[in-house]
This record gives sequence, structure tokens and C-alpha cells, in this order.
Amino acid sequence: MKKTYAILGAGNGGQAIAGYISSLGYRVRLYDPMTEVVNKLNERGSIKLTGIYDSENKIELVSTDLKKVVKGADIVMVVNPSIYHRDMAINCAPFIEENQFIFLHPGGTFGAFAFKKGLEDGGCKFDVPIAESNTLIYACRAVEAGIVNVAGKKDRLLVATFPAANNEMVCNSLKEIYEEIEPASNVLVTSFDNTNPIFHPAPTLLSTSWVESDKDFLYYYEGISNSIGQFIIEMDKERIEVGKALGLEYGTDLISSFDQYELEYNCKGDNIMEVVRNVGAYEGIKGPNSLKTRYLYEDIPMGLVAIASLGDALGINVERIKLIISLGEKLLNEDFYTNSRNLKNLGLENMSSEEIFNFAITGQK
Amino acid sequence: MKKTYAILGAGNGGQAIAGYISSLGYRVRLYDPMTEVVNKLNERGSIKLTGIYDSENKIELVSTDLKKVVKGADIVMVVNPSIYHRDMAINCAPFIEENQFIFLHPGGTFGAFAFKKGLEDGGCKFDVPIAESNTLIYACRAVEAGIVNVAGKKDRLLVATFPAANNEMVCNSLKEIYEEIEPASNVLVTSFDNTNPIFHPAPTLLSTSWVESDKDFLYYYEGISNSIGQFIIEMDKERIEVGKALGLEYGTDLISSFDQYELEYNCKGDNIMEVVRNVGAYEGIKGPNSLKTRYLYEDIPMGLVAIASLGDALGINVERIKLIISLGEKLLNEDFYTNSRNLKNLGLENMSSEEIFNFAITGQK
Repeated sequence: MKKTYAILGAGNGGQAIAGYISSLGYRVRLYDPMTEVVNKLNERGSIKLTGIYDSENKIELVSTDLKKVVKGADIVMVVNPSIYHRDMAINCAPFIEENQFIFLHPGGTFGAFAFKKGLEDGGCKFDVPIAESNTLIYACRAVEAGIVNVAGKKDRLLVATFPAANNEMVCNSLKEIYEEIEPASNVLVTSFDNTNPIFHPAPTLLSTSWVESDKDFLYYYEGISNSIGQFIIEMDKERIEVGKALGLEYGTDLISSFDQYELEYNCKGDNIMEVVRNVGAYEGIKGPNSLKTRYLYEDIPMGLVAIASLGDALGINVERIKLIISLGEKLLNEDFYTNSRNLKNLGLENMSSEEIFNFAITGQK
Repeated sequence: MKKTYAILGAGNGGQAIAGYISSLGYRVRLYDPMTEVVNKLNERGSIKLTGIYDSENKIELVSTDLKKVVKGADIVMVVNPSIYHRDMAINCAPFIEENQFIFLHPGGTFGAFAFKKGLEDGGCKFDVPIAESNTLIYACRAVEAGIVNVAGKKDRLLVATFPAANNEMVCNSLKEIYEEIEPASNVLVTSFDNTNPIFHPAPTLLSTSWVESDKDFLYYYEGISNSIGQFIIEMDKERIEVGKALGLEYGTDLISSFDQYELEYNCKGDNIMEVVRNVGAYEGIKGPNSLKTRYLYEDIPMGLVAIASLGDALGINVERIKLIISLGEKLLNEDFYTNSRNLKNLGLENMSSEEIFNFAITGQK
């Protein structure tokens, strides 16, 4: 019998994925906490994909009832901004079953650890594998509820599983739907491959007046100016040092943003401002119109705080990363630590780098 | 016999002041370290004032020789960005004479303390009074060397003298040339009246991408956006708290930026963004085109560092001010502490707030 997928989150990505997996003949259930979205999807009765796909796809169940969606599914795929992962884990915890696995698509920075801790805190009885990808496979946008334009699909999706011993099973299963999946050795690799925390908060904050003006600006072409580019490359070095301190091998499992741009976009340059200006896909992307943006509200607490907390615990200099966290907190009047991916919420308190690395591999503390 | 003025600094302000004082019939000597400027002024042979003035004025001596300019003068008026005050003091020290007084026009933040310490470090034998104003009296620009357009003159020039007992003598003397002078009770008052450190560095840094783009922006109208305005008002509160901790009376000798705008420009508003947008004089002022601007290179080391160093020493929360200093240092790859108005260079190390207040009044530690 074909597997059953529970997709948690009916945003752009969740709808696209639900439609696509259904088109392959799998059984799909879709959860969202927002009644309005769920009602609209149920009224429509199916999800239409356009763009690189062209199909109309039945979804077995669209519901605000997490229990009905999760129980009995084979794979629980979480397609949510990382700020919701912890609450989602706590809410899922009672319904997770022994033979399921979870796939955070994407995981953000240390998503698997955060989800694991959330399941524990929610009283989950089973030690299910938790996989995470480095990014969302699609560039997509729901034109209206149930009609999703999928503009593009990435060539490569890094996936690692916590604990790592389950990765082959998980990746083999997920490759049935996405052959683009490339197994990574552990969840530290996928986490450190997410450079959004480097490329989003600092340029946004250092463009505050432009963001809040009535004038548009090009996020990558103008927002990453010369000094900002130099600054974020120094932040990137702090990210790299934390990754190295955790045992990742530089050059393979952990690469610089320069190397990432060369690998993913075949773009090089003398400095990062030049590099991003060579990325065709960035050409028309505008900066946010408000500081209330996931570039800050997701990438600071879920990304920078995670890296900074680990950096501090391991004695790595993360002064620029911490500076940007503080600037965000003070400028937005927010506390970005308490409910964030701090060491407590990641379940990594009082652990050495070796213990964290082993935890990523074995799941055992 | 008419007094002799030594004007140190032949920039826009120095040339305007030298020309004006000469026009009143005083003997004027003008010093500048730049040979090119001095040669041009000597070639021209006089300083022409336009705008609110219309006169052609002989200068007794224009020279790069500090000794020749300073010795025998009655009043030594320093018309320089505050970053040069310390070096100027050290260089002047051997030539200062017993009956002179010094007038820093303007003093920046704690200019008199910085100059006093510079004179000491330069081996000055005399304890001459050091006055400072809160601002430069003119809005002026040298069209070319020796021709200065004076567009406007302020209605009020706060002047305080270190030590305060000399203030009446100094102000009476300076009022011969500027009747706009209003004596302030001590140099802490004039120092804290300088809000450039609040209004320049944060908006500039938080506009980095715009500063470095090829697009102009309006410094006050666009650069002080809603969030930036709220942030600098919190910085302003830190400034106020340091001033209060030093013994300044809030509401009279120490006022908020809101009250300052109401007093000086008759502009009010619900928030500081609204207030500055009501200031007619700000209307066309554009933001800098580069981070190499005195908004950062003067106002951080000479202003914010002075306030933060004192705040830290007195146990006042100056976290936002320190955040902006750090951001400036990291973004510009500069050390803004070592050669700045830190406690050492201000001669205020290991002093309590009472001792600093008494020092400002009496000149005695």
C-alpha cells in the first residue's frame, strides 16, 4: 500500500508539496492551525499546481485537527517557518507513533534538535527519527488557497537525519518523491548549510531607514553594500568557527558563503557584494517594507541565537553575531533569546562539542 | 589696545570668524597646519565675507607656525573638529602664556577636559581658563580659500569656562565680538547640550546600504525613520541619565532632545521622526555618500565614547550607546576607544561623579 504523508503547514510550501505528493499517488493529509485556510482548501476540494507542474490533486484530509492528520501517517513532513517548530513538536508529541519519521522541510538552524526537545517536552513516548533539509525544494507561491504556482525546483536537497544511523532509511524513503535528495552525514551539516542568518538580519538592520521609507530597494543588489558585505563575511567566519568547533570538517561538511555561491550558483567574485550581484536569481528581489519581516523575526532567534549560544558555550568569538542580535532586540524592542533556539530549547545545555557531535550522530547524550 | 585673537584652524568656521573679528578692528592671526591653505590665504592677502556680511578683511598673520600665532595673543580660539582638539592642545602647550584664555568653538563633548589634559600632557606651565561653546555660531562655507559665505548666525551661543569661576571674565570678553553668548553654569552643561552623538551615528549606520548606494537620501527626513527615531530617543535617555548622574539638573542645565528641538526650532511632535520632519532648516539636507563621514568618525569617538565611558564608570546603563560604538567599530574596522575621549584622555580616571562635577567648577581634583 502507498505510504501516507502528513503535511503540517498549509502555506505556500505545504500546499505545493501536498499537491505534488498526491499527484504521485500517495495518500496525503494536510494540517494547518488556521481555520480559514483549511475551510477554503476544503471548499475547493483539491490543490491545483501550475508552473513547472500542471495537475489537480485530491487531498485525503485537510484539517485543523493535528491528531487526525498525524495518527496513522507514515511520514510527518513539517513545512513551517522554523519559529513554529518547537510549538508544533510539543503539539504533535501525543500523536507521534513508533514507526513514523519526521521530516523538517526545511529545518533551519538545529531544527532536528529543537523538534526533538519539543517532542520530549510535549511528552512524546517514541524516539522517532527526525530528518531535516537545508532548504525548501520549491520556489512557489499560492495564488489563492488551493492554487499554487511552482516556479522552480532546486537541483539538490541536502537531508540529514537525527540520529544519523536512520539517514539511509529516511533518504531512501524520501527519494521516492524527491530524487534530488542528497544525504548529508548529520544534522549539523544541514544546519550549518543554512546561511540565511548571515545574509538576512545584518543587511536588513543596516538598511533600516530604507526599509521604512516609501522607496523600494533591491535587497541583494543594494542592501548588501560594500561595508555590509565585508561585515557579513566576518559574521560568516564566526559561523564557520562554531561549525569547526563542533567537529565539522571545513571544506566538505562546512563551507564558506563564497564556496556556497560558487557551488550553488556558479558565482564568484572578489568580495561578497560582487558575488551576490552576479546571482541572476537575485536580480529583482526587493527588500522588505517593514522591520516586521522573517529576515529578522525568524533568522535572528532561530538562526543567530542558535549559533551565538553554541559559540559562547564553546568559547568561540561570535561578537559580530551577538552584536546583530542585540541591535535587532534594541531596535525592535524584542527579546530574541527566551523563546528562541537557545541551548535550553535545543536540549544542548552543558554539553561539550564532542558530546553535541555524538548526540547528532547517535541521539544519545 | 585692541585685543589680539589667535584663531587655530582655517576651515570654513575659522576663516569666517577670522574675517569677522578682523572686521571689528581686532588684530587677528590665523593658524592652519596645511601649507596649501595657508599659502592660498596669504596669496589672497585678506578674507572676504559674503552672505550676512559684506567685508574684505586683513589678517595680521596666516601661518603654519603655531608658536608665532599663539604667543602674545590675548585669546586663543580653536575652531576645529573635536577629533583634533587633543593634538592641538599638546602642540599648543609650549606656547600658551599666563594671561591668555582658550575658547573651543565649539567644544564637542567634554572638549575643555580633553584640551586641559592635552595641555598637561604637552607640558603647559600655566593653568589658563578653557572655555567651550555648545555649537559653532555660523552656518558658513568657504567658496574658495579666503572667500567665505556666511549663510546664517545662531541666536544663542552657550559658553561655559573651565574652571567655572572664570566664566564671567571670559564671557564678558567674548561678548565684545558675539553678543549672542549666553553663559552656562559649567562645561558639563555645554558638553551635554551637544546632541550630535545622538543624532548622527545611529541613523548613519542604520542607513549603511543607502549611504553606500548611488542614490541620495534626505538625512533627517528619511534617515531618521520611525524605528531609528525610537531607538535614538532611547539613546537620548541614556545621555540624560549620565548627565543627571554627573549632577546636572534635568529640565534646566540638561534637557531632552525633544525639549531642545522645541527651544531651538519651536518644533514639537509625538515622536522624534515627526519633530525633525518639522524642522525647516533640515529640509534639503542629504545623507552622507560614504561611511567616511564626521557623523561617525567624529561623533562616535569624541561623543559617544565620552558619554559611554563616563556612564560605565558611574554605573549608568548606556547599552544602546555602546551598541552603536561597537557597530561602528566592527562595520568600519576602527578602534574608536584608544585615541578618543576616553576617561584617560579626558583626565577623569577613577573620579566619582561629585569629583567630576567639582573638577568642572573648580578645576581642582
